[in-house]
Amino acid sequence: MPYHEQFRVTPGSQVRLTEVDPTFSGTREKKKTAQQTSEDLQERLKNLQFQLYAEGQRSLLVVLQALDAGGKDGVIRHVIDALNPQGCRVMRFREPTSEELAHDFLWRIEPHMPRRGEAAILNRSHYEDILVGRVRQHLTAKVINERLGFIADFERRLAANGTQILKFFLHISKDEQLRRFGKRLDDPLKQWKISEADYTDRERWDDYQQAYGELLSTTSTAYAPWFIIPADHKWFRNLAISQIIVKTLENMHLQVPTPTVDLDEIRTKYHQQT
Amino acid sequence: MPYHEQFRVTPGSQVRLTEVDPTFSGTREKKKTAQQTSEDLQERLKNLQFQLYAEGQRSLLVVLQALDAGGKDGVIRHVIDALNPQGCRVMRFREPTSEELAHDFLWRIEPHMPRRGEAAILNRSHYEDILVGRVRQHLTAKVINERLGFIADFERRLAANGTQILKFFLHISKDEQLRRFGKRLDDPLKQWKISEADYTDRERWDDYQQAYGELLSTTSTAYAPWFIIPADHKWFRNLAISQIIVKTLENMHLQVPTPTVDLDEIRTKYHQQT
Repeated sequence: MPYHEQFRVTPGSQVRLTEVDPTFSGTREKKKTAQQTSEDLQERLKNLQFQLYAEGQRSLLVVLQALDAGGKDGVIRHVIDALNPQGCRVMRFREPTSEELAHDFLWRIEPHMPRRGEAAILNRSHYEDILVGRVRQHLTAKVINERLGFIADFERRLAANGTQILKFFLHISKDEQLRRFGKRLDDPLKQWKISEADYTDRERWDDYQQAYGELLSTTSTAYAPWFIIPADHKWFRNLAISQIIVKTLENMHLQVPTPTVDLDEIRTKYHQQT
Repeated sequence: MPYHEQFRVTPGSQVRLTEVDPTFSGTREKKKTAQQTSEDLQERLKNLQFQLYAEGQRSLLVVLQALDAGGKDGVIRHVIDALNPQGCRVMRFREPTSEELAHDFLWRIEPHMPRRGEAAILNRSHYEDILVGRVRQHLTAKVINERLGFIADFERRLAANGTQILKFFLHISKDEQLRRFGKRLDDPLKQWKISEADYTDRERWDDYQQAYGELLSTTSTAYAPWFIIPADHKWFRNLAISQIIVKTLENMHLQVPTPTVDLDEIRTKYHQQT
């Protein structure tokens, strides 16, 4: 089964993340051959992005969510990097500012939606607030349910306006997170980012897993599906996401417009001497 | 002489573009070895970008200007593409909208300035309006002079706030432009963009060269220098720009912050079993 079907969260289904293996790396994939496959996919992706731009009618929105060290930055570096930075914006959402908190929770999201012909990548998103709000009990169940409804409305509006939405949850194991934290400790370029809160947050691991499971269950829709990507193996994570994005863009049957001028006439008139 | 000195427009100098050879490709550079050099530069650039982000105090603004087919898109694809798209935004400025025209000419530029730790690339910029305004005489000399003053103020403010500004003019010959238009005619993915105006604009070639010469002369400053890049040879153009950006970032002596936690304590406390 291709990954855009295998990892897709069926709308209305009950996701239990404890039942999804984060170490899965395909049945036939090998790390050795994955690099070649990924390069082929990246070439197709570049080409599809140009068609998206040329058509100028539709757009692509990619949402990335994960726990700390889940690999969002890695996906951006290895998958999204294949895209021409012109026509593809990456927005990293941090903790809301006081100005952002003084508005509706989608107010800070809306300005970063892709224009027609372009792609936007969200590193964390409107889902983060809800998730953290649920686990840390900053938000009541009533507010959360209301927001889930607003998110559904918002995404349906985007989809109706031609935005293809893909939402990826990068699923890692608790052990793998600790291993990645350990590597960070030894990396002089990354040590400055380490805080004790990275570790104390791990005490809520099970709560986060459960909250994510529920969130993915209730917000995966036909027009804005979630994909749960086994992400302990970085090479497999990148391969699966590349494949899902490429397949989705191919299924859009993008159309490059026909020229508005007579090409032969232009050739004769301006290029005949060359 | 390194390119960041050789191609830099000395503040107060009189530029005549007719005296700058667009086919120049270095005295010692060879196309064969340039690819390897470019790849080395791109590795250094990736590393420097991470340091810029880690330091989080200063930012980089790159302005790209050129006549049609001058290679702005190529520079973005080959040079800027080395940067992590997270923390580097490319903004393409089109003809101003009616909303943009209803504001001061810098109103649409300001929101796209880089935040600390990030880079912004402008494909066309506040210089485009002035240039077109001068050649097509939409703007009076008085308005143009006033705007040149406002640009100087604006760029000085950015620089004072920690933004390193680099402005590149990609200099191609009239023959090379026609050759590139010819290639576009034969490219099924690009034919749709061709218009007769591309060709009729060439009648104003000399006016544009003169207007650019004057603009580069009057707006190259110590804090926001222009570089005139010989751009008939794409490989040389990419090499020169990569080298100038790398050299500039290296000269900033970016500082990665020191960790805020005791790394050994964290190791003992959380990683001892592994």
